[in-house]
Amino acid sequence: MRCQPPAEIGASYSDIDTPALVIDLDAMERNMALLAERVSALGVRLRPHAKTHKSAMIAAKQVALGAVGICCQKVSEAEALAAGGVRDILVSNEVVGARKLSRLAALARQIRIGVCVDRFEQIAMLDAAARQAGAQIDILVEIDVGGRRCGVTPGPEATRFAAEIARCANLRFGGLQAYHGRAQHLRTPAERRAAIDAAQKGVIDTVAHLTAAGFVCDTIGGAGTGTFLIEGASGVWNELQAGSYIFMDADYAKNVSDEGGNAPRFEHALFVLATVMSATTSEQVVIDAGHKALSNDSGFPDVWRRPGLAYHRPSDEHGVIAVASGATPPSWGEKLLLVPGHCDPTVNLHDWYVGVRNFGTPQARVEALWPIDARGAVG
Amino acid sequence: MRCQPPAEIGASYSDIDTPALVIDLDAMERNMALLAERVSALGVRLRPHAKTHKSAMIAAKQVALGAVGICCQKVSEAEALAAGGVRDILVSNEVVGARKLSRLAALARQIRIGVCVDRFEQIAMLDAAARQAGAQIDILVEIDVGGRRCGVTPGPEATRFAAEIARCANLRFGGLQAYHGRAQHLRTPAERRAAIDAAQKGVIDTVAHLTAAGFVCDTIGGAGTGTFLIEGASGVWNELQAGSYIFMDADYAKNVSDEGGNAPRFEHALFVLATVMSATTSEQVVIDAGHKALSNDSGFPDVWRRPGLAYHRPSDEHGVIAVASGATPPSWGEKLLLVPGHCDPTVNLHDWYVGVRNFGTPQARVEALWPIDARGAVG
Repeated sequence: MRCQPPAEIGASYSDIDTPALVIDLDAMERNMALLAERVSALGVRLRPHAKTHKSAMIAAKQVALGAVGICCQKVSEAEALAAGGVRDILVSNEVVGARKLSRLAALARQIRIGVCVDRFEQIAMLDAAARQAGAQIDILVEIDVGGRRCGVTPGPEATRFAAEIARCANLRFGGLQAYHGRAQHLRTPAERRAAIDAAQKGVIDTVAHLTAAGFVCDTIGGAGTGTFLIEGASGVWNELQAGSYIFMDADYAKNVSDEGGNAPRFEHALFVLATVMSATTSEQVVIDAGHKALSNDSGFPDVWRRPGLAYHRPSDEHGVIAVASGATPPSWGEKLLLVPGHCDPTVNLHDWYVGVRNFGTPQARVEALWPIDARGAVG
Repeated sequence: MRCQPPAEIGASYSDIDTPALVIDLDAMERNMALLAERVSALGVRLRPHAKTHKSAMIAAKQVALGAVGICCQKVSEAEALAAGGVRDILVSNEVVGARKLSRLAALARQIRIGVCVDRFEQIAMLDAAARQAGAQIDILVEIDVGGRRCGVTPGPEATRFAAEIARCANLRFGGLQAYHGRAQHLRTPAERRAAIDAAQKGVIDTVAHLTAAGFVCDTIGGAGTGTFLIEGASGVWNELQAGSYIFMDADYAKNVSDEGGNAPRFEHALFVLATVMSATTSEQVVIDAGHKALSNDSGFPDVWRRPGLAYHRPSDEHGVIAVASGATPPSWGEKLLLVPGHCDPTVNLHDWYVGVRNFGTPQARVEALWPIDARGAVG
């Protein structure tokens, strides 16, 4: 029921059918090695977020580079990734509903599973599900460090949760989830630092209450691609959850990157390849990738290395490429590469990664076709 | 590789897991019957657009109500729907690339296939592909009636195309594709009428040139849910391609509907069911449906029949529900129904329809689970 892959392994780059989700394998591997090296130098653990890639194959590469496991957001994602061989998964999110808790507990019999809570009643429900499955589940108490989404208020509240978790035979208090999603996309280093500094105060206060009550946080998790250097150097967070660094998207590229000139430069490694399917005027052409091939929630994609071309006016199956005066218009049938505005929901639209080696050179070849295992796993 | 369905047939409504794409079957059936009746009364043909629903099961219901076939936008969609039993498909779009043309021609050996062109060179390519497959393909020349997307300029140009098509042994000139997508969502009846009146002038002019050259247009196709009454009554269009009427979305609901008080009232029949997964403050709650469960390209979803609740600040797996002062806040674990801003790309995010009978009553039950056959079929 999965769609046919848009290429065959070994095919030349020009034979990839469109729209296709294409990885520059060399760039992705450089991104993965660079982040792993930087996190290792900070002396903290890496648990990359698989909500970005949804691929057991890529998760395995992250673990091979030293990651202690991966994060995901949904029970069904965890199931798909566990089926692909991942052995340690944190669902960095709240899970609600008897059916989902029971599936989560079943998974925890097979692999190490952690999950977040921000509701007191949920602790007993998780314990009951784990007991029924004969499993142990690690619990992180999520605190709201500025995202105004999930999480309890930093301070004494988490201690009440930890005490309740400690009373449950099939749960283990693992620490805190302290992720500041909104901070990742603040444009200047100063804004990002201010946001994480404020978050850090909340984490320190919460940990002080926990420590005073005799609770140890094995894990203080959080951070993303936009801020991981700050959390990693804080002496507070000890497990970093960056995800987007492997691919980088057009929105992340708008962040001004300058942590004292020391920030790693991640490369764009994920593209939607599209074909010019209509070219009836000189001011614009139409390509075969619209809302169903690209998520436009964080802005339109950039047209890769084609100055003067701009994607706009997407509809479900079409995108319009405006051609600036003086720019070379793409020809009918030509293929264009788009850097997605936002990788995560774009990946979720596709069934296959087409991994290209020697991307951007005449030797470019399809080296890998990887299923996007957890595509559509929203439950 | 398809995700598990979020419910079982026969289950009570309250047992549906979330996020789920839920159909109010009664409302959908009323919408389908109402449109079929109105199009029949206009004395024109109906060829509903399956890009909305991507389901062979729903296509079969449309054909049972008198549709001559269905439209879709992509070769892979046509393949998925043909595999589900649909026998007459118009790909109401241009198809570019040897691989896709060869697949389209292979399909045309099995079922009746039509496709659009707006590029002269493409005619010979289509003919070659059809000849190689031993197939016949119907060709509509697309004209740009105001959408500024694909299509040749109305007027004499289409006649040159028709003449070339007529010279090709494996192609048949079928007429014109004249769809005005942008007109569908113009808010007032007067704006929509003005747009279609302008489009109509272009169609009449194009047909006059074709007729003078001896070409007959079996089909003049176009129209959508927002304007089909206008095209249908024009005496010009003879095959209507509405799609969204079966489900209706929050964006279409913003159209002011008053064709002399005569406009059919289509009901919201498609919902994303979501669960309140975090409720830590009185001003907002967080639900388990974000960009990966809902397409927000045409505005955020409406919260169904819960005054004072507004969906906003979506992230990939979360949506925030703002609770207006004085409104009843949803409780933790409660399920909410969302009317998608835009149905088509929302449907494309899910693997299953959960069809509910007696929706909104205590007798509500899951009657059907339909696979979304062409989910992800973007190629």
